[in-house]
Amino acid sequence: MEYTKPLAKLIECFQKLPSIGPKTATRLALHVIKMPLSNVSEFADALMDAKTKITYCENCFNISCSSPCEICSDHTRNKKIICVVSETKDLMAIEKTNEYHGLYHVLQGLISPIDGIGVDDIRIKELLYRINQNDIEEVILALNPSVEGEATAMYLNKLLKPFNIKITRIAFGLPMGSELEYADEMTLARALEGRVEIE
Amino acid sequence: MEYTKPLAKLIECFQKLPSIGPKTATRLALHVIKMPLSNVSEFADALMDAKTKITYCENCFNISCSSPCEICSDHTRNKKIICVVSETKDLMAIEKTNEYHGLYHVLQGLISPIDGIGVDDIRIKELLYRINQNDIEEVILALNPSVEGEATAMYLNKLLKPFNIKITRIAFGLPMGSELEYADEMTLARALEGRVEIE
Repeated sequence: MEYTKPLAKLIECFQKLPSIGPKTATRLALHVIKMPLSNVSEFADALMDAKTKITYCENCFNISCSSPCEICSDHTRNKKIICVVSETKDLMAIEKTNEYHGLYHVLQGLISPIDGIGVDDIRIKELLYRINQNDIEEVILALNPSVEGEATAMYLNKLLKPFNIKITRIAFGLPMGSELEYADEMTLARALEGRVEIE
Repeated sequence: MEYTKPLAKLIECFQKLPSIGPKTATRLALHVIKMPLSNVSEFADALMDAKTKITYCENCFNISCSSPCEICSDHTRNKKIICVVSETKDLMAIEKTNEYHGLYHVLQGLISPIDGIGVDDIRIKELLYRINQNDIEEVILALNPSVEGEATAMYLNKLLKPFNIKITRIAFGLPMGSELEYADEMTLARALEGRVEIE
């Protein structure tokens, strides 16, 4: 015997989501059946709303309901600095610090030949166009310290050199509150390499 | 800055599901935005279908689109044996073994005074009614070997005694393929207690 059809279908839908296997999908689907109808229909509407109403900012490729997005159209922001991130979630992480007040550029990916993602598959052309068209003073590369992040940062650095603007990269080193003793060699090596003079 | 409204709403909906925290909810919601529209609307429909079309079997309280359910209305099944389980997922687990061909009774919970679930909150009355109305020869208690499962099994055993039918409980012991050396004391104790004579 199989699960009754509507349940089997819902389990299948949950399973298509990342990191959700058959057991979790079944648990979630059984939970949905026990939820009040109003919550389920709210969930179904939220799914459709998120998919149909959300678009990408034509300027920075952040996800937004409007284009240009809330950040690009905010007049209090410093329009001479662009912080380059890989995904919207990285943008959100930086926003949460309340330390950055410039603009962003969401690449929507990182160069990764293994996954078949080349330089034309992410929003590099659009970044160059923005730098060309606007008076930009600094580009901050806020990409992950992974193989793909490093490769993308190096490639961007090479492309941006001719523009004669300041190109910076976020610092890598020991996370706050961590202990030197337990840091891995790579992190410690980067922390040493990136040491700054005490004023 | 917060996530754009439809996204924030979808994240909130995902977070209401069990074992989904804010980070996973965000990841799932961002994934939905990247999914093809057809898949998203399929997902939304599956949610509503599962909630609106699925009901409980009036006989055994298994979830089903029809009442009586597929199992209760299957004439090839032995209608003299009832296997009592706590949830539909336990029923499914037993069905997968292909070893059992009787009927089921889904209690829809276990007695758990800590969670405020008493004997009247689960389908015990309905089980007694079924046994009273039908010619039942055996009731198999297939409840989890947890505190709640034990309590419910003991309570049911007491209630069913007067009916003068065979009451059995699934065996607890070493799982197949496991090693005695690594078994916990409780399991080993139950395995010893439940030892069977070799014929």
